[in-house]
Amino acid sequence: MTLNTYRNEMLPVVEEALKAATQPANTPGQEVLYGMLSYHMGWEGLGAGPKAAGKRVRSMLLLLSCAAAGGNWRAALPAAAAVELLHNFSLIHDDIQDKSDLRRGRPTLWALHGTAQAINAGDAMFALAHISLESLEESANQAIYAAAAKLLARTSLQLTQGQYLDMAYETVENPGVEAYWPMIWGKTAVLIRACTDLGARIAGLTGRELKAYMLFGEKLGLAYQVYDDLLGIWGDPDEMGKSAHTDLLSGKKSLPVLFGLENKGRFASRWQEGGIPEEQVAEFASLLEEEGAQQYTRQKAAQLTEEALEALHAANPLQTAGEALMALAQELGHRSL
Amino acid sequence: MTLNTYRNEMLPVVEEALKAATQPANTPGQEVLYGMLSYHMGWEGLGAGPKAAGKRVRSMLLLLSCAAAGGNWRAALPAAAAVELLHNFSLIHDDIQDKSDLRRGRPTLWALHGTAQAINAGDAMFALAHISLESLEESANQAIYAAAAKLLARTSLQLTQGQYLDMAYETVENPGVEAYWPMIWGKTAVLIRACTDLGARIAGLTGRELKAYMLFGEKLGLAYQVYDDLLGIWGDPDEMGKSAHTDLLSGKKSLPVLFGLENKGRFASRWQEGGIPEEQVAEFASLLEEEGAQQYTRQKAAQLTEEALEALHAANPLQTAGEALMALAQELGHRSL
Repeated sequence: MTLNTYRNEMLPVVEEALKAATQPANTPGQEVLYGMLSYHMGWEGLGAGPKAAGKRVRSMLLLLSCAAAGGNWRAALPAAAAVELLHNFSLIHDDIQDKSDLRRGRPTLWALHGTAQAINAGDAMFALAHISLESLEESANQAIYAAAAKLLARTSLQLTQGQYLDMAYETVENPGVEAYWPMIWGKTAVLIRACTDLGARIAGLTGRELKAYMLFGEKLGLAYQVYDDLLGIWGDPDEMGKSAHTDLLSGKKSLPVLFGLENKGRFASRWQEGGIPEEQVAEFASLLEEEGAQQYTRQKAAQLTEEALEALHAANPLQTAGEALMALAQELGHRSL
Repeated sequence: MTLNTYRNEMLPVVEEALKAATQPANTPGQEVLYGMLSYHMGWEGLGAGPKAAGKRVRSMLLLLSCAAAGGNWRAALPAAAAVELLHNFSLIHDDIQDKSDLRRGRPTLWALHGTAQAINAGDAMFALAHISLESLEESANQAIYAAAAKLLARTSLQLTQGQYLDMAYETVENPGVEAYWPMIWGKTAVLIRACTDLGARIAGLTGRELKAYMLFGEKLGLAYQVYDDLLGIWGDPDEMGKSAHTDLLSGKKSLPVLFGLENKGRFASRWQEGGIPEEQVAEFASLLEEEGAQQYTRQKAAQLTEEALEALHAANPLQTAGEALMALAQELGHRSL
């Protein structure tokens, strides 16, 4: 079975679990609230469809980790839904915080319903993530539910800590490349680690093998974010579904920018003049590239993906699911741009 | 032991548990985020002190319910901290949603740090509420932790549903008195019910007795909110720490206002002209009183408090803690204004 065969088998079931989790029974008068969640998840409203829904990467990682660790992936569905809901909670609040009007080419929740209701929709999604875990008590057992509930709560806190740093860096002139790692560790890597951790844990792994899955997820999460930063400046606009150089225009302190600022070359002095005009953004991207930021970022992504794959190898994954997991990791960490 | 004796014994321990829960170890670089939480909880910054901290009503209800149900209240401390943190998460987001500049006479978090960081501080508080429960696994056992984690997650969702209705009613001209109950059920009563539920559950109660504690909490929560609505219009400004007629000025659809609107008398037609000027607010309050809204609201609060006390009686609480619980219920539901 290839990654795509697994996708075809798992994704419809994930989608069904997500729908069940975000449409609880007995909620009269709450149609608008649950309509907001359904819109955000890509199921209804303007532009609804698979593209709006996203790739459900976190659910796939969790289910494949469970299968590769010898478990029954269907028993892990409540957790696969929970990580996806937690991710989407963070996106809803993120869009408010960044004042982003669009996500995946569609108006964001706050742009449609105002900040107050969008904060609340995010809070509801946060609660639903925790509620979704409950069924682990039946599909696995109470000890696994208890461990998963603790893990999800701690992951949520670390997400907010990463988000705090990301926003705090906006007002720091030159935070330095080293400041990047704790930020993306919280914002991205911890949740990806929770996926591989939960998958392996629900399969019954403990000790060294469980730790190998955790390390795999952590390194993969870091690689994923670094690669995303690369695409945010040098990615193909058509493939990305947004304009080129987006991260430069928004002034995001991504890894290439932090590298450029620390380098104190022409990029840094131009950046410090404040605000990049749209017509100069390609020039800024070229400056960064000349100063080595692209190469540095690409190397980091490749190295982290390599470390992730080594950790996965050490976890002794079962053959077909393990190979699919490896293919997914290479897709996310993109060892070659 | 009287209610005050219990307060003197329990509150310092609650405060200690809350501080431990909101100051996790190993969070380098997160001083500002945790400083925000500490400020909101009333421990530091401008105007810090017991008045800024509030009365910790929810923790007290939980611990007294545990003691009255024959349990060791110290075993319930993780849950007492969790309900207080969940309440404070909702206050932080509420202040952003209502654009309230002041809470308990102090600038609100968003007024000091901006909306983006305040949303995040609320999210962190939400996560910490769930994390706080974890220690129940040691102080009680795994089954109780699992039950408490589920209860907290469901309570969180119902909170967001109540909050949704509250905000949705802002744009509905005359939602009707009946629309009030599902809104305050979610916004206030469910969390108060979770307090008495968790306290009794940690004490080991099940079945009919547990249900009696739940009913006690639910009725008390409704009474508490109805009484709060009464004070929001006719309360003593000195005692309340805010100006008189606050709820009328902000246009809040509280119970007396919903009663007045449904009554379609002079209050309703004046209200529908839009916006109450500050110099006319006393006149509006008098109109409401003449039309019977004050008496109606007072009767509802008294009736609900009575029902709460009946439920508590049916729960067979142990003597001294039960009496303290009764005194606290009377304080919160104020059978006489």
